[in-house]
Amino acid sequence: MEFRVKKVDLEIGENSIIMNREDAVERGLNAGDRVRLFLGPRARTVIVHLSSTFVSRGEIGIFASSMEEMGLKPGDTVRIAHAERPASIDVIKKKMRGEKLGREEIFELVRDIVDDNLTDVELTAYVVSVQTMGMDMDEIAWLTEAMVKTGDTLDFEGEIFDVHSIGGVPGNKYALIAVPTAAAAGLRIPKTSSRAISSAAGTADVMEVLARVDLSLEKIKEIVETVGATLAWGGAVNLAPADDKIIRVEYPLGIDPRPQLLASVMAKKKAMGANVVVIDIPMGEEAKVENYAEARKLARDFIELGERLGMMVDVAITYGGQPVGRAIGPALEAKEALMALEGKPVSSSLIEKSTAIAGILLELGGKARRGEGKAVAKEILRSGRSREKFLEIIEAQGSRGIESSEEVPVGKYHEDVTSMEDGYVGRLSNKALVRIARIAGSPRDKGAGIWLNKKKGDRVEKGDVLFTIYSSSKERLEMALRAARRLMPHKIEGMILERIPSYHEEG
Amino acid sequence: MEFRVKKVDLEIGENSIIMNREDAVERGLNAGDRVRLFLGPRARTVIVHLSSTFVSRGEIGIFASSMEEMGLKPGDTVRIAHAERPASIDVIKKKMRGEKLGREEIFELVRDIVDDNLTDVELTAYVVSVQTMGMDMDEIAWLTEAMVKTGDTLDFEGEIFDVHSIGGVPGNKYALIAVPTAAAAGLRIPKTSSRAISSAAGTADVMEVLARVDLSLEKIKEIVETVGATLAWGGAVNLAPADDKIIRVEYPLGIDPRPQLLASVMAKKKAMGANVVVIDIPMGEEAKVENYAEARKLARDFIELGERLGMMVDVAITYGGQPVGRAIGPALEAKEALMALEGKPVSSSLIEKSTAIAGILLELGGKARRGEGKAVAKEILRSGRSREKFLEIIEAQGSRGIESSEEVPVGKYHEDVTSMEDGYVGRLSNKALVRIARIAGSPRDKGAGIWLNKKKGDRVEKGDVLFTIYSSSKERLEMALRAARRLMPHKIEGMILERIPSYHEEG
Repeated sequence: MEFRVKKVDLEIGENSIIMNREDAVERGLNAGDRVRLFLGPRARTVIVHLSSTFVSRGEIGIFASSMEEMGLKPGDTVRIAHAERPASIDVIKKKMRGEKLGREEIFELVRDIVDDNLTDVELTAYVVSVQTMGMDMDEIAWLTEAMVKTGDTLDFEGEIFDVHSIGGVPGNKYALIAVPTAAAAGLRIPKTSSRAISSAAGTADVMEVLARVDLSLEKIKEIVETVGATLAWGGAVNLAPADDKIIRVEYPLGIDPRPQLLASVMAKKKAMGANVVVIDIPMGEEAKVENYAEARKLARDFIELGERLGMMVDVAITYGGQPVGRAIGPALEAKEALMALEGKPVSSSLIEKSTAIAGILLELGGKARRGEGKAVAKEILRSGRSREKFLEIIEAQGSRGIESSEEVPVGKYHEDVTSMEDGYVGRLSNKALVRIARIAGSPRDKGAGIWLNKKKGDRVEKGDVLFTIYSSSKERLEMALRAARRLMPHKIEGMILERIPSYHEEG
Repeated sequence: MEFRVKKVDLEIGENSIIMNREDAVERGLNAGDRVRLFLGPRARTVIVHLSSTFVSRGEIGIFASSMEEMGLKPGDTVRIAHAERPASIDVIKKKMRGEKLGREEIFELVRDIVDDNLTDVELTAYVVSVQTMGMDMDEIAWLTEAMVKTGDTLDFEGEIFDVHSIGGVPGNKYALIAVPTAAAAGLRIPKTSSRAISSAAGTADVMEVLARVDLSLEKIKEIVETVGATLAWGGAVNLAPADDKIIRVEYPLGIDPRPQLLASVMAKKKAMGANVVVIDIPMGEEAKVENYAEARKLARDFIELGERLGMMVDVAITYGGQPVGRAIGPALEAKEALMALEGKPVSSSLIEKSTAIAGILLELGGKARRGEGKAVAKEILRSGRSREKFLEIIEAQGSRGIESSEEVPVGKYHEDVTSMEDGYVGRLSNKALVRIARIAGSPRDKGAGIWLNKKKGDRVEKGDVLFTIYSSSKERLEMALRAARRLMPHKIEGMILERIPSYHEEG
């Protein structure tokens, strides 16, 4: 069956087409059926939607968002044929039965995910099966390999370092300090990171306030070979592309199956050519990992997976029960990171975490003796060499022309939230803070966010400023303020029952 | 936010709207986000799609298929607001963790399914969680109750009977014989059945060849009170409507989680007011249930669930390893059922199964002594009273004017498939037969299908007709023939290794 192509400006699904209803009925096709679309030598599987008026007989509607990617122009002719049901649906059903998958089966599945051969329903079935039935370390290693192989990769000579936080704690801008500190000591770190999905700011969102982050693999390699490190956006390069497709269904469900988390993180590091990796697991109330037992289990899994992939992995279990530092939101976090690099007074939690992680990198890279890494990192930071290296990275990536913390533009409108009583901050809700920052406009509105004046354990008097909300929109600021009054992220208690240290470290 | 309504002729999702991209960005909405759509006093949750050209600013696109159902006209004004994440997503996540759900939680979830508050991704997560983590009998009973309560119901005085086959075996037209036989003895049976989803013909498709099946609840009640029984289409009445929504994601995955199967079947029977129910579990190779252990477990669950719901349930485990009778496809099956009712020679498997199930109904309804039901049913069938009652049912539902098996119009084109060797039919593939019948056009093309000349255990000589394919389209017939040669549903073996009885029964 041959059809003329018509462009449809609608964001529905990259793997969808619209057929005339009569054309479809004649061919025994129903809405939701899968067909193969032949584009010259290539073919891809798409889902059929039906319309009587939208496309005429003999026409086929292709969504604008995928027109270019498919290499099509309006008026082109494509051929379609009934599609076979992808074999990887049976692989998903095997996992649903709790059986162990084979190396080939997993590769087939990942290939189909990357090629958009699976519908959202099928992809969800995969993710939920992994969440409920689990995977053993063989399967996780095969999954990681398959994710690496189905994307682009970078090759380096010698030792390549990387750091990665599994996320879940707001304000976690440590990489902007740890990465230049390690690079200043001579380590090579092609760090890529993600934009926010459900958080107020991903590392890529924060870095983008100061420099371009959409770098090609060639550019990343070039910068790493000359300057020593990047802080780039992983989404601009085709690293383990299965991950983005999988996240599309994980996100609305708010789940992050451990086997998938392990494979996704390690596949991206492996694809970048890293062979020495430090993983940060923030742990605490309302973080992704809530207790030590869970954190240690995950840490062991990262280390074992690293061994199987020929990578040395070190894990830092860090305190994630409240934000790292005081800033939440892209511009405010960039400002706070610059302040730390400039030696200005900032929250000790930020300095301690950043230098601890940099310290592990330095020890693994032979730049500091075992147990002395953190002290060496602190000295590099204090000396101004971290700041100098950070400015070099910004310059190499494409600077926005901001060179000091004072120059960072934050939200034009801001409003303080004050305490209604005397006491101590007993609890501080990560989730409530993220919610408020997102209502204020984070991460899209880079100037939007929160600056925390009071953190856990701090003494508070009635009328004291607890935090300040920033936004580029007066309306959004009002909405965020209302949310703040409703959610009250700070729980003020009459006395301190237990002082919770703001930072834990474990090698 | 208020918007003008625009009609969009596209079958995408009933619970979707199209927003102008700039309108959405201004309001912080992304493609895939969930919003509440206020239609006068009612509100419903919909998913946002984006377009720059399809709808102007201030306009909102509503799909044609849901326009009427939402009670909207083009040009109407609707208001939208950010939607809260439905609480039942947390219920689904609880099931993902393998925890037992509460009565209220299950009700909330079913309510959200019926109200279209869940996306396909969320619905899939529910179905896969039930498939992998299971449910105990408390949960299944609560699920059944919730499915009944969220739909329409029918009330009768006294004993109401029903029969239901869990499906999976082609040619299963027994209800067209068993139901009028039981009704002829004075039992009341408001039977509803479904159309084919993945099979060649549902009972509703078969019955529709002879009579209207889209009856209202009032009409069903009226016919049952006067004639004694219906053979109606369940889709025309709002019985346990959660089931149809759930099937939408089960079907592409080819799964049918047992707890959901139990609840869906029993909820529909309960909603129709039935209190005495016979469940048919076809068992055998390529049927839904493959062995006795599985069939007995499912039978016990049906009986226990019935007890909890105040319904008496009896289960027949029947042979499902090959088609029931010889006909597959709506018109051919209607023809074969009429032949059986007319006393013409038909496959004994059809007579045995139909009268065995009618016999159980007769025994449960006090119309035959224990152990004598089948003989009584055979006598009613032989006497012509079953046929008479069946014609009364057809008349009451709205006859198509077909009164005998000779008058049933079958596919204009037909072609024989012959044996290439001598021997015996060792295996007969249900799946291959259904595939061929569907390619020929079943169930949409009512005249399309297969008439089997040879079944398991039959002696075959080279050149003998194995089966005949029917279709209303010459092109489809050709395609079906090619599929038949490729799939070869009959496996001809040199000698009979084991004679498999064509029918099993268990009370």
